[in-house]
Amino acid sequence: MTFTYATPVRFADIDHATIVYFPRFFHMFHLAFEELWQDRLGPGGYAHLMNHDRVGFPAVHASCDFTAPLRFGDTAVIELGVAQLGARSITWHYRVYRAGDRTLCAEGRVVSASVDLDRFVAIAVPERIVAVLQDLVEPPT
Amino acid sequence: MTFTYATPVRFADIDHATIVYFPRFFHMFHLAFEELWQDRLGPGGYAHLMNHDRVGFPAVHASCDFTAPLRFGDTAVIELGVAQLGARSITWHYRVYRAGDRTLCAEGRVVSASVDLDRFVAIAVPERIVAVLQDLVEPPT
Amino acid sequence: MTFTYATPVRFADIDHATIVYFPRFFHMFHLAFEELWQDRLGPGGYAHLMNHDRVGFPAVHASCDFTAPLRFGDTAVIELGVAQLGARSITWHYRVYRAGDRTLCAEGRVVSASVDLDRFVAIAVPERIVAVLQDLVEPPT
Amino acid sequence: MTFTYATPVRFADIDHATIVYFPRFFHMFHLAFEELWQDRLGPGGYAHLMNHDRVGFPAVHASCDFTAPLRFGDTAVIELGVAQLGARSITWHYRVYRAGDRTLCAEGRVVSASVDLDRFVAIAVPERIVAVLQDLVEPPT
Repeated sequence: MTFTYATPVRFADIDHATIVYFPRFFHMFHLAFEELWQDRLGPGGYAHLMNHDRVGFPAVHASCDFTAPLRFGDTAVIELGVAQLGARSITWHYRVYRAGDRTLCAEGRVVSASVDLDRFVAIAVPERIVAVLQDLVEPPT
Repeated sequence: MTFTYATPVRFADIDHATIVYFPRFFHMFHLAFEELWQDRLGPGGYAHLMNHDRVGFPAVHASCDFTAPLRFGDTAVIELGVAQLGARSITWHYRVYRAGDRTLCAEGRVVSASVDLDRFVAIAVPERIVAVLQDLVEPPT
Repeated sequence: MTFTYATPVRFADIDHATIVYFPRFFHMFHLAFEELWQDRLGPGGYAHLMNHDRVGFPAVHASCDFTAPLRFGDTAVIELGVAQLGARSITWHYRVYRAGDRTLCAEGRVVSASVDLDRFVAIAVPERIVAVLQDLVEPPT
Repeated sequence: MTFTYATPVRFADIDHATIVYFPRFFHMFHLAFEELWQDRLGPGGYAHLMNHDRVGFPAVHASCDFTAPLRFGDTAVIELGVAQLGARSITWHYRVYRAGDRTLCAEGRVVSASVDLDRFVAIAVPERIVAVLQDLVEPPT
């Protein structure tokens, strides 16, 4: 299963080539990530997790293939799965499609460390987080 | 009547003071502006107006009072009205509220020129645009 | 006297109309503001003022007239003066020129409150700040 | 040899964790890329190449390891080399250091296609581009 978030390409997402500026795709990944927590943890989502539980998931690695351009006027459909649920890290798998013709525009991975924000050290992914991500874990290929 | 668009404050909207970076409020204004066209002109909205009709509404003036901070975890409710529908310009009136307690966080105005994008000169606001904005025009105060 | 900071327009500063996205002008204002503190307070500048002295200058009002477009390939020259050095606020005056032909592209003002960041309340502008801004204060008109 | 561009971390580069938002590192890469063309092709740099020669280098792949955080108040030193100068693509190699203690904060690669912007098809990297990048090509490892 994947989690999906759709958003229109924004007027200022594009660059001088009139296509979405490539770093913005990583921002789109993060939008889906933020929406996921809202969906799984309720209102406040990731903010609450950080502020209250003092747990965060900063990126330690990110990669992406850009396979087709997105333009202003397009809607981006962002799909998020969990490629690997490690002991102290989570590997997120993202695909960005152009709505309508379902062209794959970008496919990437972000590895997040599980971090205690007070001490800024890696910790085990909290059990309740493991639980709410379970249905997103991709079968091994 | 006003047009309303709500969005969570994004993880990266904030600055080193951990509140929404003030230029981002003008970006929020623009998000509501983009959503308005989607709502009034259909899919593609403002992109279609620019690409097809070759009409655009660049800002010639913007102002805003910032009255309360927004933070990550908050949801911003952006209300848009038309303060003045001029012959060759539109004055948009924006209010940004924090969802929940309805605190007013920002209130501003943006004056857009009506521009022929091929010649980059001011033109009369097209009649069909006047028509779709009519219900948003605020009564004179 | 004014403080000046110049920067190339960036590839991603522009929007679908291929001109600088208007909220980015307020960001340009802030770049000059950040560079000013670096110049007047030394390395770390505004960060040090915030983190150490726990004083910050959040915007309570901003306005701008946009008089000519900037495009990718242009260099923006940002001039900063102090329109008013109030008891508990500073009114910054910004002008953005296109380098080369010195076309005025934007002129605006930002009113910053002087804030104690621990209590988030307005305080008198600290004396040493008044001192380092003195030469930038514009004569009354 | 590498090309180097240094910039202060900006007030709004950071996220709710008060460290530089990871997609901003790819933006930093791009800043160095833009500065490189300014340095190698003269005023207007990449804009002139795109607008005049109708050649551009959109990203088809990007990856990065994030090894240490950057915060507001830090200065980022971005080093750029050419990992591979292919027939129709260029692989850029970026390293971002924190100035002062020279901590490596991010290391990544971006593969750019060489593209004819009128037809949006891949073309051979123009000879004069190959010439100006020669000194940046890294020795095979």
